[in-house]
Amino acid sequence: MTPVDCLVDGRPAQQVPLTDRGLQYGHGVFETIAWTGGRAQFWQQHLQRMQRGCERLLIPMPEPARLWQEVKQVTAGHTGPAVVKITVTRGDSVRGYLADSHSPARRIVCRFPWPERQSPAEGISLALCRQPVGYNPSLAGIKHLNRLEQVLARQEWRSTEFGEGVMLDQQKHVISGTMSNVFVVKDDRLLTPALSGAGVEGVIRGVVLELAEKLGIGPQVAPVPLHQVDLCSEMFVTNSLIGICPVKRFNGKEFASPGEVTATLIEQLADSLEQ
Amino acid sequence: MTPVDCLVDGRPAQQVPLTDRGLQYGHGVFETIAWTGGRAQFWQQHLQRMQRGCERLLIPMPEPARLWQEVKQVTAGHTGPAVVKITVTRGDSVRGYLADSHSPARRIVCRFPWPERQSPAEGISLALCRQPVGYNPSLAGIKHLNRLEQVLARQEWRSTEFGEGVMLDQQKHVISGTMSNVFVVKDDRLLTPALSGAGVEGVIRGVVLELAEKLGIGPQVAPVPLHQVDLCSEMFVTNSLIGICPVKRFNGKEFASPGEVTATLIEQLADSLEQ
Repeated sequence: MTPVDCLVDGRPAQQVPLTDRGLQYGHGVFETIAWTGGRAQFWQQHLQRMQRGCERLLIPMPEPARLWQEVKQVTAGHTGPAVVKITVTRGDSVRGYLADSHSPARRIVCRFPWPERQSPAEGISLALCRQPVGYNPSLAGIKHLNRLEQVLARQEWRSTEFGEGVMLDQQKHVISGTMSNVFVVKDDRLLTPALSGAGVEGVIRGVVLELAEKLGIGPQVAPVPLHQVDLCSEMFVTNSLIGICPVKRFNGKEFASPGEVTATLIEQLADSLEQ
Repeated sequence: MTPVDCLVDGRPAQQVPLTDRGLQYGHGVFETIAWTGGRAQFWQQHLQRMQRGCERLLIPMPEPARLWQEVKQVTAGHTGPAVVKITVTRGDSVRGYLADSHSPARRIVCRFPWPERQSPAEGISLALCRQPVGYNPSLAGIKHLNRLEQVLARQEWRSTEFGEGVMLDQQKHVISGTMSNVFVVKDDRLLTPALSGAGVEGVIRGVVLELAEKLGIGPQVAPVPLHQVDLCSEMFVTNSLIGICPVKRFNGKEFASPGEVTATLIEQLADSLEQ
């Protein structure tokens, strides 16, 4: 899973300068995109999230047409699914937190092999991470490069027993997985944690919320105390590579896997993919 | 202020691989060290903080003797003061938050020119930053590479009117400057914010706390509500390059600059420098 093909500011490269603000401070954003059927799935949604992140982090957003050109370049001649990762940093600067207002953003576009291990159709078990998520409204929602909490949470298990880990905030509310968003079904309605204080607003999360709206099964976006998960009938996690992945076990509770609502959403998501 | 001379894992270089976890997730720590009089000031304290940070971030701490060798190498033949920045990241890994347990840490050791603009002896004015500091006990104290809050706060002013900006937490407690620690003097006793939920435990902060202990002027390490600063007679900020820098103005309040306690501490700090 090392990058196969990378462009840095449009040129083939495998390195960035030490002066890059992504390296120095995590001053950047990234998108992990499923490249399947010769297309970047949910490209517009990825671009929109990147745009929102760049605005909040005061990074000049690269031209979408240029990013698209570079995605096509790293995937050219590649058949079958792949992962495309786009990182945009605030570019280079001298030592110190103040960014050079004239310095352009840096674009890093890489193709990676599609993960070998697929999410099992029968669902995964989730670990409960001890590492909490901090409270940080000013950065919440953005897929930025300050990912130490997720990094520390992910080191808590190496067993293949768990497909993902769930992170809580200080008040023991479920926020997200380490690399996914979390949904539960309660009384036939879909519920997912509000991400106003922490977490990443996943692209698939947004798509699922829209699907649920159309299906008339909520959705409710609200705080989700850990103990409330016990009262739920279904649970699943989402991200751009796994799509919707049913959960069969979490925190001592077994779920229908996939449950009815989850199965319906999986089907609807497949229909909405650009084939 | 671009790096003059850098070693990456012991070899002259100006770049890191795209697979570096410092770039990908901010998975690393750094130290900014004053190189004056042919010595790395407070070298042991910098090493100790780096060690604590590495332990908490699950990074194998590089051998101090090796780091010292590399610091000597980048400063060799250089007369006069300079800035040495050491960054240690979790090294390379495949895409994904899980670190490769066999992968070594990466060492980046660079020399930078000493800042041209010195802190004025008569003190500086501080801005009050709108950007808040998040609540994050699991990362508090560490000088890690997840510095987006400080980055955003530092973009709030470009005028030379302000020498530094003060950051508050969500409860309007003073936490720190964007690149410094904050001290106030109240009733002849030294007070500095507790950093259990946010902030960086600066090396000079530690030294000043020890000096204050010896002088019998506190120190008190406790939450500092913003409104309490109005009741203080002196204020100063600290970091490894400016040492102790008196504050003459903050949030509409004027301070003696330097006040008596500040002047004494400046003198004592100078005495404790390894000449």
